[in-house]
Amino acid sequence: MNEGSQLGGSAGLAPEAAVDLLGLLAYAELISFFQLSADAELAPTLTDKAALAGLAAAEYEHFSRLRDRLTRMGIDAETAMRPFTAALDSWHEQTQPQSWLESLVKAYVGDGIAADFYRQLAEHADGETRELVHGVLSEGERAEFVVEKVRSAIGADPTLAGRLALWGRRLVGEALSQARLVAMDRPKLAALVAAGEAGADSADSGDVGRVFARLTDSHSRRLRHWD
Amino acid sequence: MNEGSQLGGSAGLAPEAAVDLLGLLAYAELISFFQLSADAELAPTLTDKAALAGLAAAEYEHFSRLRDRLTRMGIDAETAMRPFTAALDSWHEQTQPQSWLESLVKAYVGDGIAADFYRQLAEHADGETRELVHGVLSEGERAEFVVEKVRSAIGADPTLAGRLALWGRRLVGEALSQARLVAMDRPKLAALVAAGEAGADSADSGDVGRVFARLTDSHSRRLRHWD
Repeated sequence: MNEGSQLGGSAGLAPEAAVDLLGLLAYAELISFFQLSADAELAPTLTDKAALAGLAAAEYEHFSRLRDRLTRMGIDAETAMRPFTAALDSWHEQTQPQSWLESLVKAYVGDGIAADFYRQLAEHADGETRELVHGVLSEGERAEFVVEKVRSAIGADPTLAGRLALWGRRLVGEALSQARLVAMDRPKLAALVAAGEAGADSADSGDVGRVFARLTDSHSRRLRHWD
Repeated sequence: MNEGSQLGGSAGLAPEAAVDLLGLLAYAELISFFQLSADAELAPTLTDKAALAGLAAAEYEHFSRLRDRLTRMGIDAETAMRPFTAALDSWHEQTQPQSWLESLVKAYVGDGIAADFYRQLAEHADGETRELVHGVLSEGERAEFVVEKVRSAIGADPTLAGRLALWGRRLVGEALSQARLVAMDRPKLAALVAAGEAGADSADSGDVGRVFARLTDSHSRRLRHWD
């Protein structure tokens, strides 16, 4: 047994669920790196383009920490990521930003969803993984940059507020669809994520629904920051 | 006068030439970040894709050091990069890799050309800039990864050697064309780069030709590493 078996934690959750969560987050960060790099084409200035490159580079840095953590646990990162590539690729394909502001809102929403999953990981993981999660979550720079840009755009054109809020809800909605598919395929991972809700060691679709109801609420609150 | 005026160094070169070189390298790193991110689509495996993302993230890190150096000198990075965007964009447009191996060779050649320019910068810059340059040049990881991948591909299919060498020469040739255009537009920058050759404080097209003859030689040697 490799070190991964320590990941189950006091809740008695299957270690593979925690490895799943590491793999899911690793691929989410990697694909987000590529998405943000591509979205930078939409930036109105070279400075903004460079700022989005900076956000992408931060995603790569998170990916590399997750990959290194998996490697130290004796787990191949590619194998751990593989079960989640289809769902995350689909989410990105179905939510291609059509403007610079949409790409910023997407970065913000995607980051917020990832943060919720990181928190679930921290609750059920060993000390080293918890440290990794706290390191990632302590970075507030992205949110500041994005909120400032979006707020100033809405200040200049208040009609943007409603359209961007709608875009934000669509992003969360599409994420929910993908999450339901992943939950059916990986019930132990779903149980781990749902455990934060109800202490369950298995999850039914109602639990997954509740997790995402909470996510949707918290993102609606976040999206109101720039109203 | 801002701190940029210290950059001329003992050769008495115009400080704006050294600022040009910082701006040129900053944009080269930034655009290379985007190019490598896009090229990663060609990667045969997720692990290789992640490795190319890592190279791209390193380019961003170099860019951010150059940008911060310019900012500390009181110079707007976007303004410093602007004169070089057309030439570097053209180089990338005219040398789009058609395969994973071509993208690796391009990363290697582009990095080698950049390293030559970094060395010129170090010779004519203040202590803080020299430290930045030595930091960037001390990173040998990229070359190792690329050489290993290309060598193993050529080992499996020796006919690749000639084709990739041709591709490498084309990359250097296209860079030379762009460099001639930049040299005509920025004679002081051309003089700074040529100074390493002949101690000149102004450059004619023969000097620029000699600089690139040396670059071409050194890259031909580098490209032979995996023969």
